Amino acid sequence: MSFDRLIEGIKRTKNPTVAGLDPKLDFIPAYIKEEAYAQYGKTLEGAAEALYRFNVGLIDALCDIVPAVKPQAAYYEMYGWEGVRVLKRTIEYAKSKGMFVITDGKRNDIGTTMEAYAKAHLGVTEVEGEPLEVFGGDALTVNAYLGTDGVKPVLNVCRDSDKGLFVLVKTSNPSSGELQDRKLDDGMTIYQTMGRMCEQWGAELPGKYGYSGVGAVVGATYPAQLGELRKALPHTFFLVPGYGAQGGGAQDVAPAFDENGLGAIINSSRGIMCAWKKEEGLDPKDYAQAARREAIRMRDEITALVPVRN
Amino acid sequence: MSFDRLIEGIKRTKNPTVAGLDPKLDFIPAYIKEEAYAQYGKTLEGAAEALYRFNVGLIDALCDIVPAVKPQAAYYEMYGWEGVRVLKRTIEYAKSKGMFVITDGKRNDIGTTMEAYAKAHLGVTEVEGEPLEVFGGDALTVNAYLGTDGVKPVLNVCRDSDKGLFVLVKTSNPSSGELQDRKLDDGMTIYQTMGRMCEQWGAELPGKYGYSGVGAVVGATYPAQLGELRKALPHTFFLVPGYGAQGGGAQDVAPAFDENGLGAIINSSRGIMCAWKKEEGLDPKDYAQAARREAIRMRDEITALVPVRN
Repeated sequence: MSFDRLIEGIKRTKNPTVAGLDPKLDFIPAYIKEEAYAQYGKTLEGAAEALYRFNVGLIDALCDIVPAVKPQAAYYEMYGWEGVRVLKRTIEYAKSKGMFVITDGKRNDIGTTMEAYAKAHLGVTEVEGEPLEVFGGDALTVNAYLGTDGVKPVLNVCRDSDKGLFVLVKTSNPSSGELQDRKLDDGMTIYQTMGRMCEQWGAELPGKYGYSGVGAVVGATYPAQLGELRKALPHTFFLVPGYGAQGGGAQDVAPAFDENGLGAIINSSRGIMCAWKKEEGLDPKDYAQAARREAIRMRDEITALVPVRN
Repeated sequence: MSFDRLIEGIKRTKNPTVAGLDPKLDFIPAYIKEEAYAQYGKTLEGAAEALYRFNVGLIDALCDIVPAVKPQAAYYEMYGWEGVRVLKRTIEYAKSKGMFVITDGKRNDIGTTMEAYAKAHLGVTEVEGEPLEVFGGDALTVNAYLGTDGVKPVLNVCRDSDKGLFVLVKTSNPSSGELQDRKLDDGMTIYQTMGRMCEQWGAELPGKYGYSGVGAVVGATYPAQLGELRKALPHTFFLVPGYGAQGGGAQDVAPAFDENGLGAIINSSRGIMCAWKKEEGLDPKDYAQAARREAIRMRDEITALVPVRN
């Protein structure tokens, strides 16, 4: 019902980062794709299988040093139900290796429809009274443009199943300000207002390390807002995208953390997944070891500035 | 690249309504579920198969009088990849019967990630240069909290594949005002600002009936805002949820239409799907005929107030 399990993973690994699993076909070494196509054809199923094998290699190489993965639902949906099946298999595999799984789906709706998303991604679906786990993630990203009606159903599922959610507050993209930075008539911006709602919603899911089960997505590309929100939202854990490929560095994400080096987890997707393409002369079969080296570099760069304290 | 095909369906059937396909197990007659469980077990696959058979009955009973269906992605995702496969099969079946399909996914993300959602739901995914249709919907609902970066990739796919999108503007739920009704420092509300962005984005996808390929979701439960937005957004086609079960009636949705009875499509989900539960003494095997009777009643109620003109 909070991010206690995630925080314990961060303390154990002394690493406040999460590896994004956004496996585009372009990111996957040719030998993996060829093996998958040979078995399943150049089809959605073949492509999805390549995604899965790529993910398994990454998870194996990262699971002892990185506490969490963040599969991005879009890159699985893109390959149809075959891809969505691989999302489930990836989540299962990451959990079997002890990783915390943040499903990045940015889902949103109201009432029983939002409850359906929450059951799908975090809870259980009942079939004739039998509770069945569906995707089994540990946390889900959520877009709260629809207000409390779109968040309450997720809170209820999180309370029952010890899960969490991350609400989009200030996203990392260049146009995030078009709406999110606009000032309301009380002088607060939209992202500040959304952040304040996270604190309110989070009061229902308190955690033992001071952070609730309602986190916020705040981009590394806006370091001033990161620091401002860290102060304004003392119970809200941050998921921080935008490090690496999108331009954010360790200096930029440092303001996201509290004095114990907690309070935030920094995501890198392309930086880790595509590390193998940047090492000259590397055998593509060693892609996962290149990912591990980049994950260690990222961890060390961030914790040199902001060490994780126990 | 616009809603021309949808508008032509509305003109042909003289019916500006869409049947929501949100098939919860509770809504499905027992005989359908028992047949599906007998074949596939009381599993996610069995439940998903029951959803599909229920949908097929509804589509068969509605396809000559209702121009469009709106499957709600959450109710399929809830049954895992097996449910997502049935979303695809449902879309295929509805299209084979000449219906326009609005996939209600409220998807949102940025850049290539949003492009992945657009390809999944509206376009094609390339596997080794081979373009493969994935879900094949005609339109997708989108949440634009992330700004233009989250909409542009969908516009591009819509332009290439003659599809459309509906952006959440003023949703039908009680708490929609928490954020959407807040006034910005220029005096406009957030939903008005979002509506104005729809007009701007829509300029890239003009249609021959005056409506662009960028529509807006505006709830039947807020008739004053519906009328206000109809005047303010002359090129934006409205998808209007909240009729029936959520409390909106024909009087409430009338302001959504232009002087030709166009410019909006009104959704009913539970009202149509569960009509069979309200007719006393009805054989559940006649559920689809009950749905048809309710769809006709709804059409007649709305077009009595606002006739569709050719």
